[in-house]
Amino acid sequence: MAWTVYLSGEIHTDWREKIEQGASQRGLDIHFTSPVTDHAASDAAGDLLEPVSEGYWRDHKSSGVNAMRTRNLIGRCDFAVIRFGDKYRQWNAAFDAGMCAALGKPYVTLHDAALIHPLKEVDQAAQAWAQTPEQVVDILAYVIG
Amino acid sequence: MAWTVYLSGEIHTDWREKIEQGASQRGLDIHFTSPVTDHAASDAAGDLLEPVSEGYWRDHKSSGVNAMRTRNLIGRCDFAVIRFGDKYRQWNAAFDAGMCAALGKPYVTLHDAALIHPLKEVDQAAQAWAQTPEQVVDILAYVIG
Amino acid sequence: MAWTVYLSGEIHTDWREKIEQGASQRGLDIHFTSPVTDHAASDAAGDLLEPVSEGYWRDHKSSGVNAMRTRNLIGRCDFAVIRFGDKYRQWNAAFDAGMCAALGKPYVTLHDAALIHPLKEVDQAAQAWAQTPEQVVDILAYVIG
Amino acid sequence: MAWTVYLSGEIHTDWREKIEQGASQRGLDIHFTSPVTDHAASDAAGDLLEPVSEGYWRDHKSSGVNAMRTRNLIGRCDFAVIRFGDKYRQWNAAFDAGMCAALGKPYVTLHDAALIHPLKEVDQAAQAWAQTPEQVVDILAYVIG
Amino acid sequence: MAWTVYLSGEIHTDWREKIEQGASQRGLDIHFTSPVTDHAASDAAGDLLEPVSEGYWRDHKSSGVNAMRTRNLIGRCDFAVIRFGDKYRQWNAAFDAGMCAALGKPYVTLHDAALIHPLKEVDQAAQAWAQTPEQVVDILAYVIG
Amino acid sequence: MAWTVYLSGEIHTDWREKIEQGASQRGLDIHFTSPVTDHAASDAAGDLLEPVSEGYWRDHKSSGVNAMRTRNLIGRCDFAVIRFGDKYRQWNAAFDAGMCAALGKPYVTLHDAALIHPLKEVDQAAQAWAQTPEQVVDILAYVIG
Amino acid sequence: MAWTVYLSGEIHTDWREKIEQGASQRGLDIHFTSPVTDHAASDAAGDLLEPVSEGYWRDHKSSGVNAMRTRNLIGRCDFAVIRFGDKYRQWNAAFDAGMCAALGKPYVTLHDAALIHPLKEVDQAAQAWAQTPEQVVDILAYVIG
Amino acid sequence: MAWTVYLSGEIHTDWREKIEQGASQRGLDIHFTSPVTDHAASDAAGDLLEPVSEGYWRDHKSSGVNAMRTRNLIGRCDFAVIRFGDKYRQWNAAFDAGMCAALGKPYVTLHDAALIHPLKEVDQAAQAWAQTPEQVVDILAYVIG
Repeated sequence: MAWTVYLSGEIHTDWREKIEQGASQRGLDIHFTSPVTDHAASDAAGDLLEPVSEGYWRDHKSSGVNAMRTRNLIGRCDFAVIRFGDKYRQWNAAFDAGMCAALGKPYVTLHDAALIHPLKEVDQAAQAWAQTPEQVVDILAYVIG
Repeated sequence: MAWTVYLSGEIHTDWREKIEQGASQRGLDIHFTSPVTDHAASDAAGDLLEPVSEGYWRDHKSSGVNAMRTRNLIGRCDFAVIRFGDKYRQWNAAFDAGMCAALGKPYVTLHDAALIHPLKEVDQAAQAWAQTPEQVVDILAYVIG
Repeated sequence: MAWTVYLSGEIHTDWREKIEQGASQRGLDIHFTSPVTDHAASDAAGDLLEPVSEGYWRDHKSSGVNAMRTRNLIGRCDFAVIRFGDKYRQWNAAFDAGMCAALGKPYVTLHDAALIHPLKEVDQAAQAWAQTPEQVVDILAYVIG
Repeated sequence: MAWTVYLSGEIHTDWREKIEQGASQRGLDIHFTSPVTDHAASDAAGDLLEPVSEGYWRDHKSSGVNAMRTRNLIGRCDFAVIRFGDKYRQWNAAFDAGMCAALGKPYVTLHDAALIHPLKEVDQAAQAWAQTPEQVVDILAYVIG
Repeated sequence: MAWTVYLSGEIHTDWREKIEQGASQRGLDIHFTSPVTDHAASDAAGDLLEPVSEGYWRDHKSSGVNAMRTRNLIGRCDFAVIRFGDKYRQWNAAFDAGMCAALGKPYVTLHDAALIHPLKEVDQAAQAWAQTPEQVVDILAYVIG
Repeated sequence: MAWTVYLSGEIHTDWREKIEQGASQRGLDIHFTSPVTDHAASDAAGDLLEPVSEGYWRDHKSSGVNAMRTRNLIGRCDFAVIRFGDKYRQWNAAFDAGMCAALGKPYVTLHDAALIHPLKEVDQAAQAWAQTPEQVVDILAYVIG
Repeated sequence: MAWTVYLSGEIHTDWREKIEQGASQRGLDIHFTSPVTDHAASDAAGDLLEPVSEGYWRDHKSSGVNAMRTRNLIGRCDFAVIRFGDKYRQWNAAFDAGMCAALGKPYVTLHDAALIHPLKEVDQAAQAWAQTPEQVVDILAYVIG
Repeated sequence: MAWTVYLSGEIHTDWREKIEQGASQRGLDIHFTSPVTDHAASDAAGDLLEPVSEGYWRDHKSSGVNAMRTRNLIGRCDFAVIRFGDKYRQWNAAFDAGMCAALGKPYVTLHDAALIHPLKEVDQAAQAWAQTPEQVVDILAYVIG
């Protein structure tokens, strides 16, 4: 039985690669999906479309294009892993978590203990909280094993 | 025709009061709902239940109780207004926005221009972005007028 | 038993008034709802919000505000009446019809015989096609009688 | 990961072919679907069924048959592209857009700048607005890339 | 707590009146709803609309108008009672039962023992089978009591 | 693109075989599904389970087992064809049609002109009415072509 | 704002009365609903209907009637409280919890610490676990306050 | 046509193996899925995650992880078989049944006659009640045959 896992959130560390490698090493039948993780490309996703815009509307246009991908992949996943790093506001990750909760998609959060209190609502709706990619792989191995 | 508007997010300024007063002064037939906005009470919402817990589990227990209120009010509202202040991470506000988006509940964001870029995904799924409570009242007056 | 009927479409003739008066004269217990029908106000619905915009983005901003009203009223109605006049493209009326069809909201179309062929997909998904406001009132009186 | 994209709207120019060729040249794993694009065949879709009818009922009968295809393909697509040409009323395209919006299917509109104002409600609910088939291919390549 | 009960099916005997009177005598807080039960009026429900039609299309037009009422009332009821008499094919009653089953609306069937075998699929999806209006009233009194 | 078509209704003539053969001859990529069409086996579907029962409960038990199949196949089909013969009450076919209508599954009815009036509600919610298996095959060929 | 709370589970102690009295004393605007709590009446709910049955079918018939009430009240509640006592198997209470979880209805469990381990799946999907009716009232007062 | 059947409930006897072997011997095209059936592993499913916890929170953490698997498999199955043994409280099995009922997933219960009365609500919502794995295989063979 094949499984699809969406990896949402932080794009500045290699947590996705660690999870994908760990899953691969253990032979898990998982197809991982992600948003576009190239920050500059993501910010420019709508630049090829008119009207040429700066600021709010540039962000709006690119976010519309990115949402085509992210909502589709959330809708098609069996689970999500939602990662919060220690920098930036990462509201898009919390937004994805809220979508998962409303759609009944189970998700695991991945973050340091320092973020427990500000993430309490996001963690409460999660199935599990992990602190390392290795723990995520262990959980996935157990869950689909 | 009565309308119900859920006011999500920041609890450290008086934006809710300003919106409620503005709506009242203009005679709008709106019932406003909110999460519990007393920070200490919200953090302690589950303290009366066992097991007595600290840290992660205390937050988890309180968040479970608070979610009974917040998800119910989101489910029963016609619109939401989602406020992001300039302090704190406010992931719960972005989480509420994600739930609204998935449930098809229209929402307006309320935040300063300084937050445009980090909130671009949340704003893209919104019906409108306002910077002041007065703008929110103007929009509500137009929408339900 | 009270009924709510949404009146979508053309804003340049008095068809809404005729239906509302006809229903009132026959004592039908119907609450009618509508989009904002003041054309200039509707086009300017987002003008009070930044960024100040022209062209595409002005339309986008105003449409976002107007959709808060229209989707909400479509979601809360028991039926819709969707009117196509003989001028303008009126794609918003066909868009509303598509939303009604997908949401399972029964609707009646109201248009002249000259529009039968271009409206065939919209009419096929409708419960009935009427040519005059009087016919609509007759249908409503029968349906809720 | 395979993707399915529904191409709705105008049937008098070769925009579908351009998108399909562009996607093929870039090796995108997309299955494109469409309504029946032979105008005469589409109008006659129900002619083999009784009662033999002209005018309204002929259109009604054929539209019922065509809707078997179009609603099914909309329901099974990951995204839609909805094209408005500069001729005809094309209410069926706006109707499809409304269905997509209500079903949560992301869509891109494809039309000239001259149609911005009359299509503002349809564009507001879209994820992006493109003016050329090449832009659509670029967006698809980015989104599924 | 008020309850709404839809009374579907046979229109040639006084079973609706018996249930309504029985419920009234026992002081049950039930609002009963029904299709239009005047057979001739129901067959003519669309006659005021063009195209003037006979046979299949007349039936189609009237059924479209009647369905505005019946589907709405099914959607708004808490329960349905679905009556099968000993005459006529009454496929509309079985159709209503199928809609109730798919929508999760609990229903009671009301028919003679002679119809057990042909109604086995309809009865299996029902919450109860009654043979007399008095039994239906007893069940309603118990259920909402 | 593969399609699944559920063939509901009459089990005493060879209409299913005719449709399957016609589709096969035209090379249509359709997987046909059906209820169990062996009348005696269907009536006995629950006989192996206790309590050993006659009459109402035997029918109830067998219908429960049969519904496992029929509802599942209706839920998984792209379209249904619903056949009414000239004998028997065939309430299960009308029940299936009601389920399809509520679930948004497009269906075609297949019956003689003599049944137009009693089937008017079932036909109104259908996408098309056919009188012969050959017409059904023609429609399917057009729709998926 | 009025709230509706469904009280599911154990019928042999006075926990419902304690919650209702506590809520009343604190002036909470809550309408409480419950299954029929008279055990003998509940077991006999279908006895007035034929076929007269014993054992499995008697239970089946009565459960069908009771489910008309319970599923309706679960569907209409804002929250549920689900009580497990120290006697009997109470599978119906766990069944109600599963329905609530699938429907997105928040619920609180009410049971002694001795039942923590066997109820772990039911508690995990709950918003809170309480051990006394007084705690439930406190939680309700906080949540709707 | 492939089928997926979820086997929920008791983990202390070999009923799953018997069903899987029986289905295999008869060549049924069924993919069986199950919760993790190693009791100790299931209780420890969350032990690798912090906070290290005992009692209620340990159970809560492990149940969260297990629910990722169970709800996903329930959501993806065509049918469920829900087994109640003669020991333990097995509230999780009844909870799964409630989820199936709310989601419209047909299920068969598997239990001894001694449990008829306490399981009457669970059985009433089931499509069938079997007492032996052999009966389940017979039913599956019939249903998908």
